[in-house]
Amino acid sequence: MNISTSRAEERLVHVPLGERAYDILIGPDMISHAGGEITARLKGRRAAIVTDEHVAPLYLESLMDSLQTDGIEAVSLTLPAGEKTKSLEHLATVCDLALSARIERNDAIIALGGGVIGDLAGFAAGIVRRGVRFVQIPTSLLAQVDSSVGGKTGINTRHGKNLLGVFHQPDLVISDTSALNSLSKREFRAGYAEVAKYGLIDRPDFFEWLEANWQDVFAGGAARTEAIAVSCQAKAEVVVADERENGRRALLNLGHTFGHALEAATQYDSSRLVHGEGVAIGMALAHRFSARLNLASPDDAQRVERHLSAVGLPTKISQIPGELPPTDVLLDAIAQDKKVKSGKLTFILTHGIGQSFIADDVPVSEVKSFLEETRSE
Amino acid sequence: MNISTSRAEERLVHVPLGERAYDILIGPDMISHAGGEITARLKGRRAAIVTDEHVAPLYLESLMDSLQTDGIEAVSLTLPAGEKTKSLEHLATVCDLALSARIERNDAIIALGGGVIGDLAGFAAGIVRRGVRFVQIPTSLLAQVDSSVGGKTGINTRHGKNLLGVFHQPDLVISDTSALNSLSKREFRAGYAEVAKYGLIDRPDFFEWLEANWQDVFAGGAARTEAIAVSCQAKAEVVVADERENGRRALLNLGHTFGHALEAATQYDSSRLVHGEGVAIGMALAHRFSARLNLASPDDAQRVERHLSAVGLPTKISQIPGELPPTDVLLDAIAQDKKVKSGKLTFILTHGIGQSFIADDVPVSEVKSFLEETRSE
Repeated sequence: MNISTSRAEERLVHVPLGERAYDILIGPDMISHAGGEITARLKGRRAAIVTDEHVAPLYLESLMDSLQTDGIEAVSLTLPAGEKTKSLEHLATVCDLALSARIERNDAIIALGGGVIGDLAGFAAGIVRRGVRFVQIPTSLLAQVDSSVGGKTGINTRHGKNLLGVFHQPDLVISDTSALNSLSKREFRAGYAEVAKYGLIDRPDFFEWLEANWQDVFAGGAARTEAIAVSCQAKAEVVVADERENGRRALLNLGHTFGHALEAATQYDSSRLVHGEGVAIGMALAHRFSARLNLASPDDAQRVERHLSAVGLPTKISQIPGELPPTDVLLDAIAQDKKVKSGKLTFILTHGIGQSFIADDVPVSEVKSFLEETRSE
Repeated sequence: MNISTSRAEERLVHVPLGERAYDILIGPDMISHAGGEITARLKGRRAAIVTDEHVAPLYLESLMDSLQTDGIEAVSLTLPAGEKTKSLEHLATVCDLALSARIERNDAIIALGGGVIGDLAGFAAGIVRRGVRFVQIPTSLLAQVDSSVGGKTGINTRHGKNLLGVFHQPDLVISDTSALNSLSKREFRAGYAEVAKYGLIDRPDFFEWLEANWQDVFAGGAARTEAIAVSCQAKAEVVVADERENGRRALLNLGHTFGHALEAATQYDSSRLVHGEGVAIGMALAHRFSARLNLASPDDAQRVERHLSAVGLPTKISQIPGELPPTDVLLDAIAQDKKVKSGKLTFILTHGIGQSFIADDVPVSEVKSFLEETRSE
């Protein structure tokens, strides 16, 4: 069966990573026929599903039914929702589940949920028996366009986020676009920031398309599927060129150096700022900063802000509710971000819409005076 | 500086794994100049050393001095000796040490000890920041010829041995042959079983050389260095051909299917049986079993037994002190060994000395009657 032609609204993005190549299936109501997609690609007939208490009531039964119909024996584990679940303790629980269920190398751990569940379950899949099969069923827009492509997995420690993990590519990603209907508008917008990012990195036409069609993407249907497929394709191309993150992959951090510092400055309090909002502000700042350094036209920076504002995303530091720490503390957070190498500040800057590049020698003094100026705007 | 020519008794084995290629340095008193070897190859100038309470009093100070002399800032962690240290709890402690010491991707975790320390520290090196540099300084013969080559790392869980781990190749292995002088004769012999294994797999000339020179290998000096270098070379060739253990690498399990079952049957009680002794008995059984199946000449099986007995290794199940469980329980242990795929029994069998091969359809009934017969001999 050729999936891409048999169901009109479905899209297939192939990620050509040699012996780690895999497919991303994107379309409506995919969860209800996940079993068939898995048996068509994986040899094992056992699975351990990891999900969270928000997602389980919505989709777990449908997934279990589909697996059973196709002869896959599955167990499931429902964890608390939220970033704190990315802990060593929960990792141990997932591994124990998989080993108790006798998951072997050809069997799968299935992540049903957002980025937190994907990062945790993917890490477990990377270490159980030194690597078992991994199927991602991302249920947030952020996870569908970002964390489900690229093979990064991880948990947090007392030292910071994602400090323990492995690179472990999924064997299949099933992105059910209907599942996004249950997201709050704020969650959807936060994921959309990453969609816009792919346009800003190196796809000016896609950014223009988003400016014209973003309302359809939010509404669902073919435009949503298209936006997710282009995003996955864009991320896949970068990952294929640089699987282990030594070079070009850093472009994916557009907006993230400022964004992470702002997330840290709000103590990761999601009532004040979620990741995608930090990235939206970070992308706006990266474009303004590039204009200030005479690398890009101020018109492009304004165009970015206009679009992000139109969809309802923040673009200025001052839009973050509550007090923020002094600029020196923000600078420290930027310097401690793991993208810093040997003390130099690395930023993703831009020559304009869709023309971003890696700058690895940005003077701290420039960043400081820019932050001083921009935070009060 | 070309190491292999500047110091007469040193040998260098290169493991050509593409961008994961690394060197194994073998020779006397290597620990005391480890710092220079590390700075010659690694960019980072920080290190976290993991060792155990048996090894620390002997070599930790010498290693720390050498690192300091060469400008490497090092912290160390001394763990309890023994298999129980391969736990999730100790893994967490090692990762915490590395993160507290601000080990970054180019810095190293150094394993100073035997296989337990290497497996644990290597696992940590594979997951801290999704992979930092890893230097092995194996201090047992078993670790020098087996676990330090191949990139397998891992810990044990309540379900069994090595069930969690990653493939993470070292960046450098420093095998100090003088360190083996502190091993008990029993420990040395157990490591020697793996040396002999490489001859039996596919190097008949090496096996013949060992028959003539084993006493010099035990005594130390050039023959010991030679035996370790040939063993590393042999294992490296198999690993390079099959890094992720999908095919040919299974040859390294010669003697291990029977051996693991016997280890399990003695509840891993090292006063009764250590791993190398299990492997020695397992190799003798694999040769006898092959002769019984008319695959090899009984003369070869006798020759294997004669050599292993000469060095003081056991070759018969009846040499294991204490009661053993019934044959059915041994068979169950063989069937649960992770080399079993979909219920078929996979064994490494042989057509003679140095002519081993993978047999993946060995009838359970044949194994059972062979075990019944052989256990009383």
